[in-house]
Amino acid sequence: MAEENIQVRLAARPVGLPTEKDWEIRTEPVPQAQDGEFVAEVLYVSLDPAMRGWMNAGRSYIAPVEIGAVMRAGGVARIRESKLAGFEVGDHVYCLTGVQQFFASDGKDVQKVDPNIAPLPTFLGALGMTGLTAYFGILDVGAIKAGETVVVSGAAGAVGSVVGQIARIHDCRVVGSAGGKEKCEYLVDELGFDAAIDYKSEDLGKSLRDCPKGIDVFFDNVGGDTLNTVLPMLRMHGRVVICGAISQYNNTGPVTGPSNYMSLLVSRARMEGFVVFDYAKRYPEAFAAMGGWIADGRLKSQEQIEEGIENFPSVLLKLFEGGNFGKLILRNTAAF
Amino acid sequence: MAEENIQVRLAARPVGLPTEKDWEIRTEPVPQAQDGEFVAEVLYVSLDPAMRGWMNAGRSYIAPVEIGAVMRAGGVARIRESKLAGFEVGDHVYCLTGVQQFFASDGKDVQKVDPNIAPLPTFLGALGMTGLTAYFGILDVGAIKAGETVVVSGAAGAVGSVVGQIARIHDCRVVGSAGGKEKCEYLVDELGFDAAIDYKSEDLGKSLRDCPKGIDVFFDNVGGDTLNTVLPMLRMHGRVVICGAISQYNNTGPVTGPSNYMSLLVSRARMEGFVVFDYAKRYPEAFAAMGGWIADGRLKSQEQIEEGIENFPSVLLKLFEGGNFGKLILRNTAAF
Repeated sequence: MAEENIQVRLAARPVGLPTEKDWEIRTEPVPQAQDGEFVAEVLYVSLDPAMRGWMNAGRSYIAPVEIGAVMRAGGVARIRESKLAGFEVGDHVYCLTGVQQFFASDGKDVQKVDPNIAPLPTFLGALGMTGLTAYFGILDVGAIKAGETVVVSGAAGAVGSVVGQIARIHDCRVVGSAGGKEKCEYLVDELGFDAAIDYKSEDLGKSLRDCPKGIDVFFDNVGGDTLNTVLPMLRMHGRVVICGAISQYNNTGPVTGPSNYMSLLVSRARMEGFVVFDYAKRYPEAFAAMGGWIADGRLKSQEQIEEGIENFPSVLLKLFEGGNFGKLILRNTAAF
Repeated sequence: MAEENIQVRLAARPVGLPTEKDWEIRTEPVPQAQDGEFVAEVLYVSLDPAMRGWMNAGRSYIAPVEIGAVMRAGGVARIRESKLAGFEVGDHVYCLTGVQQFFASDGKDVQKVDPNIAPLPTFLGALGMTGLTAYFGILDVGAIKAGETVVVSGAAGAVGSVVGQIARIHDCRVVGSAGGKEKCEYLVDELGFDAAIDYKSEDLGKSLRDCPKGIDVFFDNVGGDTLNTVLPMLRMHGRVVICGAISQYNNTGPVTGPSNYMSLLVSRARMEGFVVFDYAKRYPEAFAAMGGWIADGRLKSQEQIEEGIENFPSVLLKLFEGGNFGKLILRNTAAF
């Protein structure tokens, strides 16, 4: 039987949570390398909350995925055929592979990765866009200083868990919010957070009052009520890093804006958004730092690996249900 | 008949717009100077949107006015009796006089003003806290650069009108929003704004689309829908200066938070609050610059002077009805 290329394509723009009918699972022939191209087999695909935004029409920091197109995703792949100098059969690469089993590439925006440095999934986690997002977000936008109090929402998620660990490495006091006792215990016991708040069983505002001096930096992945609760607790010259708003991505009505935003005036504070791509020239600096922390055991990369490219539609929903622990990754089971 | 000291005291915390019953007009004896004090007669009192916030209980950038206390206000006064070295009878001073005709002071936080430099009301306008707020807000927090597009809300108000002129002096393209044709014509014809939008008769969002390259800096005095409309129009690395939110000060329900706040991420933009008091050490720099611009005609100070300390409760409401043109000032008619 000829090899096939299972692809997940966007069939419709979702309203609220994506459902099965927003996707088309299609089987196509495996592409052949043309001159100046390679063809690679996808091994792991990164699943990210930001994907929900890519599925919407309209202006954002990146163009929407077109209806009918293969869903955009970062992934790690192994080259199986090459007519492109510098890319050899057997090389491992990171790039926008899309949610599919095979793809052809002209090598643009493709980075080689070395599986001797770290397990391949880690290049989608702490040593991937997730880690870079955490690194530049907390260090450059958050501009943390030793001794400051840092609060992270979505702290057991891919970005949040790395943000908290980087802040600890920089001698900050770190408090994470996450859903459920198990995640909270993991943050404190395994990742070294100073405290964790289970937003499902605790009142976030009340628990944060235990931060005796207030909050210097809030790194927000969640938005909505979480952001609003933290704003009045900022210290003077506090910083709010806007990384995401996962609580709002599947809204069918308007986003909940932070009604406490005038706290920015009271606290002479700022709220700032960023996109990791802007830091591309400094990725080597971040990889070197993060690689060092992983090597000496100060930074742990937690990944949750699910099976089967064709299962993407249902696995993606785990992100919005709090069903993931660290970086959510889909394995192309057929490739192993 | 003995001289009397008419005072306006806070009688109750208002719900929504302040009403007559939130105030007590009281007549007390004129104070006598004790050793180490002077007594001054108030000439002009500054009326500011921020006063509405001072009337509420709860944490803010300044303590609330206590129930029963004389309403806090900045003012210009003339010393009539002094037992304090360095303060002579006839000297003019700026300080927190309160809304009353006479007050005693130990000289703390009192600045002398020279009526030969500018008319006394100007020390409550462009050469007062209003001008300082505009100066540090647009130059330090907004960090404007020549050629940038600056949008100011509440542009015909005390702070907004000065912000726009300072931005023009720094070679920015300046667009103001204000209520009514007369105010808009004034902004363009008299103050040199590049354009003005009458939010009462125009759709702010549609009109702002005429800013061909988007908005680099938004200086916000208004909040609510105005802020929300501008956020998606920010250019890359845009700045939103949070100075006030006059549309929200008299809400009886929650403040309207900006549901478009995730535009900060799309545009890698920041939204930042400030309080002018933090710049106290640099007031001399600002006074020198503003004084120079006034002297050479590039900065106009527009004041609207109303009569009678006892009329404070009704005159204050003009701020929230858009009934003022430039800086709203109350004259202690009895002193002239």
